[in-house]
Amino acid sequence: MPAGELQDVFDGVEAQVPDGLADHLRTVTLVDHHVHGTFTEAVDRATFEFSINEGSNDPVPSWMTQFDSPLGLSIRRWCAPLLGLPPHADGEQYWKRRCEFGPDELATTMLPAAGVSRWIVDTGFKGDRITPHGRLAELAGGQSSEIIRLERVAEDLLEDGTAPDDFPDAMRAALARAADDPAVVGTKTIVAYRTGFDIDWSAPADADVVTRARDLAARPGSPRIDDPVLIAFGVHEAAAHGLPIQVHVGFGDRDLDLHRCDPLLLLPLLRTMPPVPLLLLHCYPYHRQAGYLAQAFDHVNFDVGLAINYLGPRATGLVAEALDTAPFAKQLYSSDAFGPPELHVLGSVLWRRAMGLVLGEWVRTGDCAEADAIRIVDMIGVTNAQRVYGL
Amino acid sequence: MPAGELQDVFDGVEAQVPDGLADHLRTVTLVDHHVHGTFTEAVDRATFEFSINEGSNDPVPSWMTQFDSPLGLSIRRWCAPLLGLPPHADGEQYWKRRCEFGPDELATTMLPAAGVSRWIVDTGFKGDRITPHGRLAELAGGQSSEIIRLERVAEDLLEDGTAPDDFPDAMRAALARAADDPAVVGTKTIVAYRTGFDIDWSAPADADVVTRARDLAARPGSPRIDDPVLIAFGVHEAAAHGLPIQVHVGFGDRDLDLHRCDPLLLLPLLRTMPPVPLLLLHCYPYHRQAGYLAQAFDHVNFDVGLAINYLGPRATGLVAEALDTAPFAKQLYSSDAFGPPELHVLGSVLWRRAMGLVLGEWVRTGDCAEADAIRIVDMIGVTNAQRVYGL
Amino acid sequence: MPAGELQDVFDGVEAQVPDGLADHLRTVTLVDHHVHGTFTEAVDRATFEFSINEGSNDPVPSWMTQFDSPLGLSIRRWCAPLLGLPPHADGEQYWKRRCEFGPDELATTMLPAAGVSRWIVDTGFKGDRITPHGRLAELAGGQSSEIIRLERVAEDLLEDGTAPDDFPDAMRAALARAADDPAVVGTKTIVAYRTGFDIDWSAPADADVVTRARDLAARPGSPRIDDPVLIAFGVHEAAAHGLPIQVHVGFGDRDLDLHRCDPLLLLPLLRTMPPVPLLLLHCYPYHRQAGYLAQAFDHVNFDVGLAINYLGPRATGLVAEALDTAPFAKQLYSSDAFGPPELHVLGSVLWRRAMGLVLGEWVRTGDCAEADAIRIVDMIGVTNAQRVYGL
Repeated sequence: MPAGELQDVFDGVEAQVPDGLADHLRTVTLVDHHVHGTFTEAVDRATFEFSINEGSNDPVPSWMTQFDSPLGLSIRRWCAPLLGLPPHADGEQYWKRRCEFGPDELATTMLPAAGVSRWIVDTGFKGDRITPHGRLAELAGGQSSEIIRLERVAEDLLEDGTAPDDFPDAMRAALARAADDPAVVGTKTIVAYRTGFDIDWSAPADADVVTRARDLAARPGSPRIDDPVLIAFGVHEAAAHGLPIQVHVGFGDRDLDLHRCDPLLLLPLLRTMPPVPLLLLHCYPYHRQAGYLAQAFDHVNFDVGLAINYLGPRATGLVAEALDTAPFAKQLYSSDAFGPPELHVLGSVLWRRAMGLVLGEWVRTGDCAEADAIRIVDMIGVTNAQRVYGL
Repeated sequence: MPAGELQDVFDGVEAQVPDGLADHLRTVTLVDHHVHGTFTEAVDRATFEFSINEGSNDPVPSWMTQFDSPLGLSIRRWCAPLLGLPPHADGEQYWKRRCEFGPDELATTMLPAAGVSRWIVDTGFKGDRITPHGRLAELAGGQSSEIIRLERVAEDLLEDGTAPDDFPDAMRAALARAADDPAVVGTKTIVAYRTGFDIDWSAPADADVVTRARDLAARPGSPRIDDPVLIAFGVHEAAAHGLPIQVHVGFGDRDLDLHRCDPLLLLPLLRTMPPVPLLLLHCYPYHRQAGYLAQAFDHVNFDVGLAINYLGPRATGLVAEALDTAPFAKQLYSSDAFGPPELHVLGSVLWRRAMGLVLGEWVRTGDCAEADAIRIVDMIGVTNAQRVYGL
Repeated sequence: MPAGELQDVFDGVEAQVPDGLADHLRTVTLVDHHVHGTFTEAVDRATFEFSINEGSNDPVPSWMTQFDSPLGLSIRRWCAPLLGLPPHADGEQYWKRRCEFGPDELATTMLPAAGVSRWIVDTGFKGDRITPHGRLAELAGGQSSEIIRLERVAEDLLEDGTAPDDFPDAMRAALARAADDPAVVGTKTIVAYRTGFDIDWSAPADADVVTRARDLAARPGSPRIDDPVLIAFGVHEAAAHGLPIQVHVGFGDRDLDLHRCDPLLLLPLLRTMPPVPLLLLHCYPYHRQAGYLAQAFDHVNFDVGLAINYLGPRATGLVAEALDTAPFAKQLYSSDAFGPPELHVLGSVLWRRAMGLVLGEWVRTGDCAEADAIRIVDMIGVTNAQRVYGL
């Protein structure tokens, strides 16, 4: 299936981005510090539309299409040419053309256009139609590292028969193994989805952990870590093992209470935890709060991944606000793409374009030198992740 | 009294809005899905100034004038020419000239310039100097539909002597009548003003409702529905009758606790209610949260009415943020005008101009095609309201 | 040490700001209604970097520099020329050159460039390396007034041996003296740092105050007012004595819980206090909420000082949002500078530039007349402070 190619990321805004900055943004290869796999099989349209709607758990209703959304516009604009269609091909045309590609073909057509040199893959969400860790880099090019999900590690231990009495030591052993595994560069917690952030963040005693593990084991069904003591235990132990910790913050599907995922509610944890790198992910609409925390705590970093994709043409405003107060050493790039490879490439395209527009204006008006802007791009897109994860 | 005419809504920004989009925005007739009547009699300056200050309950103090506000600037800019004055005529000139018009003359001079084909009128707030339902469309042109206010319906029943034991059935009967009345297209709750959103949103049993109605009847004075059980009952019954439900969210006068009107606090209701259309009104400064909810729940829609007027020249930034994440099928247009007909026309003018500027930039930079932008205008300005209210 | 001079505040954006507005903004002398002193002695680089990082309490880590932050860029851009360096001189160059100036020389080089006619100095934070009240105006030119900090007044009374039984009257006497002192124009509370805003704001009885003062006296160490009753007492007494009250809101170091400093949490106080002027300071990221409160309550005013500096190139977006809904009579200018005189001058430069860009766009697109824009500048920069503080 002959494909097309990516339009220039500064198409239509060339005059707004100084040449040196634009060239750098076109070519710099990024560390995508939080991403998932792509679909391993062909999906039907309903699944595709569902997979480009972050918030909902329902099928997209019949009276609308997710192509009529900011993300939908950006898919039509940037991904249609990758499939050999003109930009802005409509949803029907796009879908029809997309169906001519197999899943691997879609991935190899789109992923390289992201220009990513390292994918740091969250392997905690085991979608059965999602490429396993390692496969993404094979399809896309670049290298790959792994983030393990703390709640998943604990659930696997309990599911595999770890006795509640042994759970604290088993968790520590698992984290020690992870810390020794060169492929694993960090951990992630989805406390946002399990309890919200307004919990007791003090480090629990083992006895308390055992009691909660026992309560959990007594519940029917697969173990699900939704007890605040068990969650806090996992986070404190990850920190004790020197592992960076990613935290899902803000924007996500409706299973979470968004207002209980304001990162400011993490203050009791931030003030008391061992200072391993903490990575606040996504953060919208609390990204200003996240930037504030990144300024206030040496070990706190943040990104606005996921939201960049979902804001589509409006991503520029978000990227601008993310540059409000945080030192440039404290922000990272991610796509948080999951499923359609459109999301992997769009995260990169929209971020490059937005950074060019925002920093380009700073350069044009003299707020910073072009060399400064290029350095900021490198810090956020590459070097901060290298430092945080010890790459 | 010879009047003037509206300036072109793209005056001063012609170069920023592509011609086809601009022409469409100049001429499309809107559904104003949440609006009130205009003053039926001449008002003095203190009343006028008070009526263009949403937040306060006090007279505007002597050391200032509401003309010195974002809304005041926009009145002087857009409404002065409608009265035959130059744009930016100062507050004194404006007021002097305005006094030469009778209330109906003011209405017929201003309202048609809003370009509204259907006014959906909230009749719950019975200002005695406000045009009754139906009169607005007579003065303005266009058609008219009605929104009934749930708390008002309940209060009227109790005030008219409904026994607490009979209240649940009486409320159901009233809602059944509303659902059968072709003039009534939906309901509204002002829970924001009565309790805030952080209440128990579960559907109450009739026995509990009767108890609360009895408590209310035992209180001296006119009945005022400020009991969370009675409020939740009204909302669930409206949904059970298939009636769309408007919810005042965010921006309003100081009788409400603004932080307790963050729409995210409605999550327990949104997750459990029957999926009739829910319309989050105004939403500022929580409009990003509202857009998120509109993405996450099929039955949730929102607008940024009222706030558009009060932000005046800054409305463009608000309209831009309202386009952050929500699918275009989930946002509507309203003015929420009440009293001075300036507010009915400004809502429309500022929205058209802001949409032209925001979407115009998307078109100019290639983020969407002009035809897409025009479709987005039609969805938000017209067709979403038609779908939601079954017009 | 020969110094340089300030670049034109509209350098690089001349075409965006109409000439009359630009000239006015270049020359108007401001009231900086909340500011602190400058360093009295030379500081080392670690202290300097720490003093340009609002949020943190830690030394800036070795792997980064605060020059790589929005504020750092703005120091390099605007302050480097004041020291005779080219704009955008890098951090090393800047620091090396800065070290050639003595502390007074730095102050007299930078402070006059702020163009401030009156400094209203918060004398509550007695940094021992900070100029005392009065010295700032000597170094900078202009006049000086004083703000006393309520918690500090109370702590001084208790530390000086006031018996708990006598504390209420002693506090009243101290406030009466302040109200009679022509140098003192208002008070400030740092409740944000002591309890957060979600406390019982009712005016306490003297007996309750005495009890709390007794509890405090029984604690070892210097008295620290962190009891909500004592804080509310101070605020109500300041109001009873007719003294304006500044309130630290939002953005500050990590000792405060930012989400508990949302100004909306002050509603119970605002609704019940005597209507002396209340000044919400800083407010980021809750500045829209602050503007709403300034619209809703006659006695509430606000600024976005401190945050303007820390946002650097992004200050324009903040200043724009601060103009969302508040009447122009209700916003003030401040720098909240403390320590490096860079902060005193940058507050002014960034505010002037941002006001020119925001209001300049309003003028260019016809949203207001140039004379209106100039009046808005004078209100926010000068006359509102004169009215509020009775200057």
